Amino acid sequence: MNILIIGGGGVVGQKLGRALAERGELRGEAISTITLADINDPAPIDGGAVKVETMTCNIADASSVEACVTADTVVIYLLAAIVSAHAEEDFDAGLSINLMGTLNVLQRARELGTKPVVVFTSSIAVYGGEVPDPIVDHSFLNPQTSYGAQKAMGELLLNDFSRKGFIDGRGFRLPTISVRPGKPNRAASSFMSSILREPLNGQEAVCPVEADFPHYYLSPRKCVENLIKGAEIAERDLGQNRCMMMPGRMWTIGQMIDAMTAVAGPEPATLIKWEPQPDIQAIVTGWRFDLRPEKAVTLGLSADESFEDNVRYYLEDDKPAG
Amino acid sequence: MNILIIGGGGVVGQKLGRALAERGELRGEAISTITLADINDPAPIDGGAVKVETMTCNIADASSVEACVTADTVVIYLLAAIVSAHAEEDFDAGLSINLMGTLNVLQRARELGTKPVVVFTSSIAVYGGEVPDPIVDHSFLNPQTSYGAQKAMGELLLNDFSRKGFIDGRGFRLPTISVRPGKPNRAASSFMSSILREPLNGQEAVCPVEADFPHYYLSPRKCVENLIKGAEIAERDLGQNRCMMMPGRMWTIGQMIDAMTAVAGPEPATLIKWEPQPDIQAIVTGWRFDLRPEKAVTLGLSADESFEDNVRYYLEDDKPAG
Repeated sequence: MNILIIGGGGVVGQKLGRALAERGELRGEAISTITLADINDPAPIDGGAVKVETMTCNIADASSVEACVTADTVVIYLLAAIVSAHAEEDFDAGLSINLMGTLNVLQRARELGTKPVVVFTSSIAVYGGEVPDPIVDHSFLNPQTSYGAQKAMGELLLNDFSRKGFIDGRGFRLPTISVRPGKPNRAASSFMSSILREPLNGQEAVCPVEADFPHYYLSPRKCVENLIKGAEIAERDLGQNRCMMMPGRMWTIGQMIDAMTAVAGPEPATLIKWEPQPDIQAIVTGWRFDLRPEKAVTLGLSADESFEDNVRYYLEDDKPAG
Repeated sequence: MNILIIGGGGVVGQKLGRALAERGELRGEAISTITLADINDPAPIDGGAVKVETMTCNIADASSVEACVTADTVVIYLLAAIVSAHAEEDFDAGLSINLMGTLNVLQRARELGTKPVVVFTSSIAVYGGEVPDPIVDHSFLNPQTSYGAQKAMGELLLNDFSRKGFIDGRGFRLPTISVRPGKPNRAASSFMSSILREPLNGQEAVCPVEADFPHYYLSPRKCVENLIKGAEIAERDLGQNRCMMMPGRMWTIGQMIDAMTAVAGPEPATLIKWEPQPDIQAIVTGWRFDLRPEKAVTLGLSADESFEDNVRYYLEDDKPAG
């Protein structure tokens, strides 16, 4: 079986590639090749017995998608996105990657006639505004950002292409991933990892919100586990709507810092500078945090047990050596 | 003030053009020109003191949209669509008109920088599936057709372009229009008018569902009234989500036929042939009928008082002479 990871150069894409290679099988079949595709050539991965290829692909360009999505691709992970703050700044980039890019991948899959499994990452940024809490599986999608609007459109496309039998789609609204390794990105949520990651690496970080700011999180390790389970769900069990929340848990910034202190001692927390940033607050306070991902839990997906786990996963999986 | 009606050759577009010309003003300003644009050159309208122009426009083509949407356009009605059964048959036509066409119009409006009022007709076909009754303003959009999915995407675009300040958008999920004059169209709901219209014109018609089939309706006359009110709502009163149900009422096919008999005597009902059609039933039984359009009612939009009114409006406004 050949697997394609679009967005394979990103944090989740790279971890997913490694986890799939280590596993060696998906949906009961041995994995022969994993292709990591991204706008820039992804970092190579040592796949052991599994062949891992890398390639560049710009999903906004249909001919680039044609070269990347081929008839022998059985499972496509579509993780590539222009993230929240970036899509707010560059409206056209968001539309061309998040909307048109998704459409190009789905149209290419349809054209092949092979009905591949398409695992699409949506986001809890599809929720917001006047909709009453708690957010349940059938809550109205009411995005307050272009990123959220474009992800909600991607969900509608995924459902409709699946209903028509062109693909076997499944979409998961990702919680904010924390602790996310690497550098800050252009997501408005970037600080939700950097205020832990940088201090754990001995560096200063800026927190642009108050300590009581609540949000909904998942570790990268659990996210990858869920994305693998997401591909393995039997089509008949998905029901009529293919898109659902991925389980996460709500913590405040204060609780996350306490968890960091419990795992790594008092030193890291002293490296956090508190500097309120109204532009970031305007985006993130529109997001929802009281979410009840019942459908995904029923289908076997799960969240972290504690935020201390998230901190430990970072130290085990990602902290740079030395 | 110049008004553009895209879909100005259709039943609602033509009636809206006539009603606006007769009214002579909108949003407190005198109307100078009404432009009716459609994929085929629309039938001309005598606008009296108001100049009425017609033109062809293919909204799937950005250069055609550029010629049609100009800087002096203050209000744009975007009514053009590939309707339900047509979009099920021709998936690409639905995507190119309903999704890309909507995007082209909104992008053009944005490019002009004039923030026009955009009145967008969505549809109650955005509802369906597992979502619990009744359908309220914040019910999950869960379309069961490509048409519904594409309209739901149009709503997301309209909201996001409005949030960004590119347009002043307002979207209305139209009930099924009945009694719709003219010829049957390729909407799966076409029979919901033809079983009344053809008998009232002395012709036979086929009913593809049972007499107890319930659905949600609005007369063309009321629809046009609501579209005019929809353009006049103050932007600040629209709230955070620009799209809402347009009020209608639920009737069964049997109740509609009884209303026809009450208004026009027993003869027309005898012209209805009952021939169940599973392909039509598969589409229309996925639609919702228990709808509570609270927001629109609060904003001054309204439904017909009785289906007898709908029948009378047809006889007064539309029945061919002779």
